[in-house]
Amino acid sequence: MTMITALDTFDVRFPTSRELDGSDAMNPDPDYSAAYVILRTDDPSGLEGHGFVFTIGRGNDVQTVAIDSLAHMVVGRPVETVIGDLGAFARTLTDDSQLRWLGPEKGVVHMAIGAVVNAAWDMAAKHAGQPLWEFVARMTPEQIVDLVDFRYLTDALTRDEALEILRSAEPGREDRIARLMSEGYPAYTTSPGWLGYSDDKLAALAEAAVADGFETIKLKVGLDLESDTRRVRLARKVIGPHTRLAVDANQRWDVDTAVAWMRELAPWDIAWIEEPTSPDDVLAHAAIRRAIAPVPVSTGEHCQNRVMFKQLFQADAVDLVQIDAARVGGVNENIAILLLAAKFGVRVVPHAGGVGLCELVQHLAMIDYIAISGTLDGRAIEFVDHLHEHFIDPVEVVRGRYRAPRHPGFSAQMREQSIRDHLYPGGRVWTADPEELSEPVRL
Amino acid sequence: MTMITALDTFDVRFPTSRELDGSDAMNPDPDYSAAYVILRTDDPSGLEGHGFVFTIGRGNDVQTVAIDSLAHMVVGRPVETVIGDLGAFARTLTDDSQLRWLGPEKGVVHMAIGAVVNAAWDMAAKHAGQPLWEFVARMTPEQIVDLVDFRYLTDALTRDEALEILRSAEPGREDRIARLMSEGYPAYTTSPGWLGYSDDKLAALAEAAVADGFETIKLKVGLDLESDTRRVRLARKVIGPHTRLAVDANQRWDVDTAVAWMRELAPWDIAWIEEPTSPDDVLAHAAIRRAIAPVPVSTGEHCQNRVMFKQLFQADAVDLVQIDAARVGGVNENIAILLLAAKFGVRVVPHAGGVGLCELVQHLAMIDYIAISGTLDGRAIEFVDHLHEHFIDPVEVVRGRYRAPRHPGFSAQMREQSIRDHLYPGGRVWTADPEELSEPVRL
Repeated sequence: MTMITALDTFDVRFPTSRELDGSDAMNPDPDYSAAYVILRTDDPSGLEGHGFVFTIGRGNDVQTVAIDSLAHMVVGRPVETVIGDLGAFARTLTDDSQLRWLGPEKGVVHMAIGAVVNAAWDMAAKHAGQPLWEFVARMTPEQIVDLVDFRYLTDALTRDEALEILRSAEPGREDRIARLMSEGYPAYTTSPGWLGYSDDKLAALAEAAVADGFETIKLKVGLDLESDTRRVRLARKVIGPHTRLAVDANQRWDVDTAVAWMRELAPWDIAWIEEPTSPDDVLAHAAIRRAIAPVPVSTGEHCQNRVMFKQLFQADAVDLVQIDAARVGGVNENIAILLLAAKFGVRVVPHAGGVGLCELVQHLAMIDYIAISGTLDGRAIEFVDHLHEHFIDPVEVVRGRYRAPRHPGFSAQMREQSIRDHLYPGGRVWTADPEELSEPVRL
Repeated sequence: MTMITALDTFDVRFPTSRELDGSDAMNPDPDYSAAYVILRTDDPSGLEGHGFVFTIGRGNDVQTVAIDSLAHMVVGRPVETVIGDLGAFARTLTDDSQLRWLGPEKGVVHMAIGAVVNAAWDMAAKHAGQPLWEFVARMTPEQIVDLVDFRYLTDALTRDEALEILRSAEPGREDRIARLMSEGYPAYTTSPGWLGYSDDKLAALAEAAVADGFETIKLKVGLDLESDTRRVRLARKVIGPHTRLAVDANQRWDVDTAVAWMRELAPWDIAWIEEPTSPDDVLAHAAIRRAIAPVPVSTGEHCQNRVMFKQLFQADAVDLVQIDAARVGGVNENIAILLLAAKFGVRVVPHAGGVGLCELVQHLAMIDYIAISGTLDGRAIEFVDHLHEHFIDPVEVVRGRYRAPRHPGFSAQMREQSIRDHLYPGGRVWTADPEELSEPVRL
């Protein structure tokens, strides 16, 4: 019997603030980081599971310690009991009564659980010799519902209703797998739209995005209405009337400001306004949506758990949601969210970017397409062309579409050299004079 | 000019699980703990500020590291700029953009901010030579609103509306201070009601509580309906018809279960059902409240921030709320919550117990009485007679009422010997054979 022999963590940080990539209205100077975890086993094949929480710098150490705090529930377990019942494994981690006090099911501890659960999924998919999306999408409906913790969901979605959704999607699975393998999954790009960029850079990148085949681009907004109006007008002029143009305020506004601001931007045919206000504020999203209809409203990248997503759907607060692979409690909770979205007929347009988020979330979108919602309508995965070179199995985006991953696992594994160079605070990138880095890591 | 010279943290844990005190439906074996912080200064008088996050054991180390991660925003600041503008100080901590990613404003990082903000308040009140409740209750309405971060609140409460609430309460302040000093503030007790207790112990403690002058007692429920029905019936029989009887499910139920369970318990005249479901689920609380009216519904001890409290009020989801002194971002955010509660006419019945929570929250309830709601109607502070001996200025509850604290500060300071004995994992209580502790700490 093989065992999980260690849970090793690494505080990995990329000095992205040096270039202002990733700047937005709430996050002026992020250092994209990963609180990274490796589950080791004594399997003779060298089987491991890799996972991480994405953060933007300070606090990555706190997040790393939180992952360490889960070791007592993981190390010493047989590999088979973990990967053989990932629903039970995820519930064990969220049910630790003492750690639960620090959430429950939110923030640092919950994200730590998500990283460990995702690492176990990476291990399970590698063990099965399949990319994660295919490993899940080929499970039976019964196996998939067993992954979900229905606690606090049953007023909106019961196990039986979830089963019905999955069974309805079963007949078309093979056709959709074939289509996914040949055509990929639509992407959209945020690369032109960071707040720190000049108008010229914005225009050049927006033009390049359209030429690259992207059908949607997104701009960051929320700091200055005059500047936002100018940038939105410029972007619309460059991309023409047929490319979708979304905007993202990164939680900057209260209700009244959001409504007033979006009425100014609406004439440029906005595909959606993302994170207009606090991610905790279901009722504010609903109020904003009613006031600015028909401009679609969305949120989700900071939505803490399935209970909040459930309420966004119940309150008619959103037209679409951004799921995030590393914010909630891992693959299991994201499947719950995808099932809720399917039940309520809400589109899923995943959040990505950062470091490794594209690599992870593509799998979840593909699971949704094959086994849950069964559709690509109005859907696209965010894409930022940034830091992919640090991963063993990086995303491939061709002509505005994500290619389906083919390697076994969750595409979560970072290159050893990248981990070593970016360890904080001792790694080469943090200790060397940036001028002296003979082979600078592309940031 | 005096400076803050250090932020020192301590992982302090009490082995309460050895006695099953504090056991409830979700927390079977808590070890009451404090992630404790001391802000040191070079003030010649030895001025310090003390604060803490309450946890129930595992994860107290994560919480302690999170407090450490705030040191860069605190150490090296002049004492005067911190205690002279505590609104700005609290906003500085919540606005750190990189740490904000780990919340925002929830969970481990937000509780860490709360501990440091509360420690700064302890320092400010000591510097002023007043107990915290009096220090705040004697501020002008303008000074009090300046403490509040109105971001995400303005759709429910504006600065002007808050000012009006405070000004309306101004005329009666001195009378209420006099009444508080002479009569104290009502308490209620949870001591009889822990799930781990036998029926005999429950009955004896409930009888003693009534004899001690408590007008409300509370029982933990939620694990087994038959047992809960028996315990509620027994308690009602022992305390008679005139003492209020509340129950607390500690988040155990989904909506349907909560409704069915409470319909069974309702005949015994339930004062409120506390935490029937997820603390994140505003809409579920509203649904439960509609279904079981007129039984009052409450929540709050796990409510993560002012945005969630705001929605509970907006959605008519609660009849009363349990504020907690160490869950949200400190005194400032609790003042925001008290102002919201006053605006919506919702009663505040603070959560306490644990370790040190009674010591802290009494000040907040007294601020509410003197300067905000101006009333004691239907209000009481939870009291558990447990671990108070570890504090320099412990609560005094006489004939079912909290006496107003008279010593300068926030009553947050733990005895040095208690900190040293209970340091985890190296302290005497954790390393010695329990039988050998010559002078065992009462647990």
